[in-house]
Amino acid sequence: MLWSSWLLGLELLLCLCVGFLGPVLGGRVLVMPVDGSHWLSMKLLVKELALRGHKILVLVPETSLLIQDSEKQPYRTESFAVPYTAAGLAESTKWLRESVFYPTPPLAGVTTNLHWLLNFTGTQVSGCEALLYNGDLMEDLRSQDFQLLLTDPFLPCGSIISEALALPAVYFLRGLPCGLDLLALQCPSPPSYVPRFHSGSTDSMGFLERVNNFVMSGVELQLCRVMYASFDELAARYLGRQVTYRELLGQGAIWLLRYDFAFEYPRPLMPNMVLIGGINCVKGHGLSAELEEFVEGSGEHGIVVFTLGSMVSSMPEEKAAIFFSAFSQIPQRVLWRYSGPVPDHMPENVKVMKWLPQNDLLAHPKARAFITHGGTHGIYEGICNGVPMVMMPLFGDQSDNVHRVASRGVAVVLSIFDVASETLVDALEKVINDSSFKENMQKLSAIHNDRPIEPLDLAVYWTEFVMRHKGAEHLRPAAHHLNWIQYHCLDVIGFLLVVVATVVLVMIKCCTVCLRRCCRGSQKTKED
Amino acid sequence: MLWSSWLLGLELLLCLCVGFLGPVLGGRVLVMPVDGSHWLSMKLLVKELALRGHKILVLVPETSLLIQDSEKQPYRTESFAVPYTAAGLAESTKWLRESVFYPTPPLAGVTTNLHWLLNFTGTQVSGCEALLYNGDLMEDLRSQDFQLLLTDPFLPCGSIISEALALPAVYFLRGLPCGLDLLALQCPSPPSYVPRFHSGSTDSMGFLERVNNFVMSGVELQLCRVMYASFDELAARYLGRQVTYRELLGQGAIWLLRYDFAFEYPRPLMPNMVLIGGINCVKGHGLSAELEEFVEGSGEHGIVVFTLGSMVSSMPEEKAAIFFSAFSQIPQRVLWRYSGPVPDHMPENVKVMKWLPQNDLLAHPKARAFITHGGTHGIYEGICNGVPMVMMPLFGDQSDNVHRVASRGVAVVLSIFDVASETLVDALEKVINDSSFKENMQKLSAIHNDRPIEPLDLAVYWTEFVMRHKGAEHLRPAAHHLNWIQYHCLDVIGFLLVVVATVVLVMIKCCTVCLRRCCRGSQKTKED
Repeated sequence: MLWSSWLLGLELLLCLCVGFLGPVLGGRVLVMPVDGSHWLSMKLLVKELALRGHKILVLVPETSLLIQDSEKQPYRTESFAVPYTAAGLAESTKWLRESVFYPTPPLAGVTTNLHWLLNFTGTQVSGCEALLYNGDLMEDLRSQDFQLLLTDPFLPCGSIISEALALPAVYFLRGLPCGLDLLALQCPSPPSYVPRFHSGSTDSMGFLERVNNFVMSGVELQLCRVMYASFDELAARYLGRQVTYRELLGQGAIWLLRYDFAFEYPRPLMPNMVLIGGINCVKGHGLSAELEEFVEGSGEHGIVVFTLGSMVSSMPEEKAAIFFSAFSQIPQRVLWRYSGPVPDHMPENVKVMKWLPQNDLLAHPKARAFITHGGTHGIYEGICNGVPMVMMPLFGDQSDNVHRVASRGVAVVLSIFDVASETLVDALEKVINDSSFKENMQKLSAIHNDRPIEPLDLAVYWTEFVMRHKGAEHLRPAAHHLNWIQYHCLDVIGFLLVVVATVVLVMIKCCTVCLRRCCRGSQKTKED
Repeated sequence: MLWSSWLLGLELLLCLCVGFLGPVLGGRVLVMPVDGSHWLSMKLLVKELALRGHKILVLVPETSLLIQDSEKQPYRTESFAVPYTAAGLAESTKWLRESVFYPTPPLAGVTTNLHWLLNFTGTQVSGCEALLYNGDLMEDLRSQDFQLLLTDPFLPCGSIISEALALPAVYFLRGLPCGLDLLALQCPSPPSYVPRFHSGSTDSMGFLERVNNFVMSGVELQLCRVMYASFDELAARYLGRQVTYRELLGQGAIWLLRYDFAFEYPRPLMPNMVLIGGINCVKGHGLSAELEEFVEGSGEHGIVVFTLGSMVSSMPEEKAAIFFSAFSQIPQRVLWRYSGPVPDHMPENVKVMKWLPQNDLLAHPKARAFITHGGTHGIYEGICNGVPMVMMPLFGDQSDNVHRVASRGVAVVLSIFDVASETLVDALEKVINDSSFKENMQKLSAIHNDRPIEPLDLAVYWTEFVMRHKGAEHLRPAAHHLNWIQYHCLDVIGFLLVVVATVVLVMIKCCTVCLRRCCRGSQKTKED
C-alpha cells in the first residue's frame, strides 16, 4: 500500500516536472511492425517505450517470420488473420535461402532482386489488406483511443491506419526502396554528390559517374511508380479518395532513421528526420559460460564472428565447404551462425550455432573480424564495437551498404558467388593483420559512439514529443503544399522568361518603329 | 590536500569514462568574438567551456562596445590594438541611436540599412586587419598550440586565423547577411518555400510572392559579392592565395546556429548545422528585492517589459513622450530599459532603468507583455518564457524576425516611425487580453522548450567533439568539391541533351536515307 502510494507520488511528481508539456507517462501507442529483420530493432524501441510506462499494442500477423505473440514482453499484442500460410511465407523467402549464393547475368541480378522484393512485399501487403478490411478489429482499435502510431513504412498498412484513425505517425526505418523516404520527406538529394542505391559510386564522383547517378535518379523516380503502384491503389481504395502512398507518408510527424554519418555520406536532412543509427547496438549482457570459455580459449589470435543475417541461416553444402576449409587454415576461432549440415571433420576452431549473440560477441575484446552480409544491423554492431569486416552482400540494399562501409577503409568485400577458401583466408588476414583496417575502424567507431544522446533515448524522446504535442507540425516544411513544378520554381522561371521576352520584343518593336520613323523623316527631308 | 587528490581522481575517472574519445578536459580554445549583441550569447558558451575545464583565450579589441577585458571571468583575454577610437566607434553606431526612429523613403530604407551595415563592418574589419598584421601577437597565438577556434563569422577575422593557424573552426551565429551561411554550408534553400530576408513572405507563398522570392534569391547572390568583397580581398591578401570568404567559411567544422523551428520556418539542414536557439534563455537568477517589490506591486494586472536591445538604450524625446503617455493609460506596471531624459510627471507605473534583467523579468509569473525591437536574443527570451510581444523593428534582420514571430499569432507589430499612444495602448491590450495570443505563445513556448538536450549543453558538446576528433570531417558534404555548374548537374544535363540530340539526328538521317532509297527503289520499279 505504502509502496503503491509512493509510486503514485513519483508519477505525480514526474507529471509536474514536465509541466505544461503534457503527460509523458501512460501514452497509448499502436504499433504496426514489418516482419523480418526490420522488427528486430523496432522491438527495442517498443520495449523501451513499454518499460517507460506507455501502453503499447503491437499488431501481429498470425503467420510471421520473426514477430511473435509473447506473454513475456511488457507490451500487448493483437493477432490478425492473414491470407497466407507459414508454408506460403516460407516459399516467398525461399529465394533468399537458395538463389542468392549463385550468380545471375548482370541485369538479371537487379530484376531478380526486384522480383523477389515485389513478391515478398506482395505477400505482406495481402496481410495488410486483411487487417484493414477486418472491420471488428479496426473498430476495436478505433475505440482504444490511441495517441500515436509507430510503424515501419516499408509496408503501407501503418500509414493507412494512421490516416484512417487520425493518429500522428512516427516512422522507424533505415530507408525505403528507390528513395521514397526522401521524396516523401521533401528532402533535397542532389544527384551530383548523393549517390543513388546500386550506382556503385561514393559521394565523390567523376563526370561519367555523375552522368550515371543523374540518369539513375531519373530511373528511380519511374521505378517508384511501378514499385508502389499496389500501395497507392490500396491506400486510395481503402481511404476512398485519390491519394498516393508518397502523399500519405508525407504526413509522418517524425522519421526515426537507422543511420548516421559514420555510415552514410553527409547530405541534406529535414527537420523531422531524427538519426538513430546504432540503436540496435545495445550494451552487452555478457556471454554464457560455455561461449566465454570458447572465446577465451582463442588466446592472442582472438575470434571471428560470422553471420549472414536473421533471414539466411544456411547455405548450399558446397558453399559451406569453402568456408569450413578456409576457417581450418586460420589461427582464430570462428563462431558461425549456421543451421546447415556440418562436415564429418569439422575444424576444431569452428563453433556453429543456430543463433548467436552477435553484438555481445563483437563487443568481446577478443573479436578480431566480422564476416557479414552487410545488413545495417550487423554493420552498426561492427562499427560500434570497432571490429573490421569481411563483407559478402546477398540481396536488397546490402551491396550498397557494403560499398559505403568499404569506402571508409574498414572492410574487404568478397562476392558470395565466387568466394574461395584462399580469397576468404586472404581477406581475413588482411582485416586482422593490416593495422590500417583496425585504426580506421577505431576512428569510425569513435565518431559513431560520440553523440550527445544515445539513439534509443533519442527515439523514445521524439516518440513522446509527438504524443505530448499531438504531432510535430512545426517541423513540417511548407514544400508539402507545392507540386513538382512549383517546388522547382519552373512556373516562376517560365513566367519570368515570358516577361523578359515580352519586354525585349516590345523594346525591339519600339526601336524598329523609331528607326523607321527616323528613316522616313530623313528620306522626306531628302526628297524635299 | 585530500580535496585536491579527490578532484584529481575525479578528473582521471572522467578521462577513463570517455575512453578512446580523447581528452575532454583542458582543451585549448581560441575565441574571436564579434562586438555588440553578438557577443552576449557567445559569452555564455565561452564561460561554460571555461567552467568545464577548458583553457580559453578571448581576443578583445582595445576599443569595443560590449566586449571587455575582465579579470572576474573564468577565461583569459588578450587585447589587441585597433585603428579606431571609442569616439569613432560611437560615430559608426550613431545612426542606430538617431535615425532608426524616423521614416525613410521606401528604397532608401534598404540602402541606408545596407550603408550602415557596410560602414559598421568596415570599422570592424579594419580592427580585424590590425589583428592579423600584428606579427608579434599572431606569433604568440601560433605558439600556444590551440586545438580549436571559436568565432562568429559575421566578421572574417576568425575564419582567416583558423586557416592561418590550421585550427578547426566552430562557428557561433544567428545567420549571415544575404544568406552567405547557407551558401557556405552548401545547404539547399529552395526559393519556392524558404522566404528570403526582407521578402515579407512566410513559407506559404502565392505565385507572385514566389516570383518575388525567386528574384530576391538572385539579387541576394549578387548582393553577397558586393557585401563580402572586402572580406574576400583581405582573406586573399593575408593568406596569399586566391580564396573567397565563402570558401573559407565552408571549412567550418560545426555551425552552432542560434535558432530552431519554433522561430524559423522548417527547411533543409546540413549535418554540421547544430541548432541552439534559445541558448541565451538561461535559468532565472531571481530579481533584486527592489525589483521584486515593484513587480509584485503590479497586482493582478502584471508587468510589461520594454527594451530595444543592447545597442539602443535611448530615443528622441518626442518619441519617448508617446511611450510615457501610452504607459500612463494602462493598468500594468512597466519596466523600461531607457537612459534618456524622463518627463517631469513620469507615470507612477513606469520604472526606467539603464539596464534591466530582461530574461528574469520575462520569467516572472507577472510578465504580461514584452515590447521589443525583435532581436533574436529578446525574441527567444520572450518565447521561452511564453510572453506575448509587441514588436517594433529598428534595423538589420529585425523586420524579418518580427514578421516570423507575428506569423505565429503571438505578437502585434507596430512601426516605430508612426507609433502613437493609442496604437501602442491598443496593441498592448490586444496581446494581454486577447487570450489567443497567450495560448499561441504557450504552445510555441512548449515546443521550443521541449528538447532532448539544452542548447548550451549541445553547444559545449559539439565544441568538445571538434576538439576530440580534430574537426568533424565526416559531416562535411562532398558538395564542397563541386562548382556551381557541377552541383546543379548542368554539365550532365548539357551532355545528355547533346547525346539525345545526336541520337535523334542520326536516327532522322538514317530514316531519311532509308526513305530516299525506298522511294528511289519504287520509282525505279515504276520506271522499269
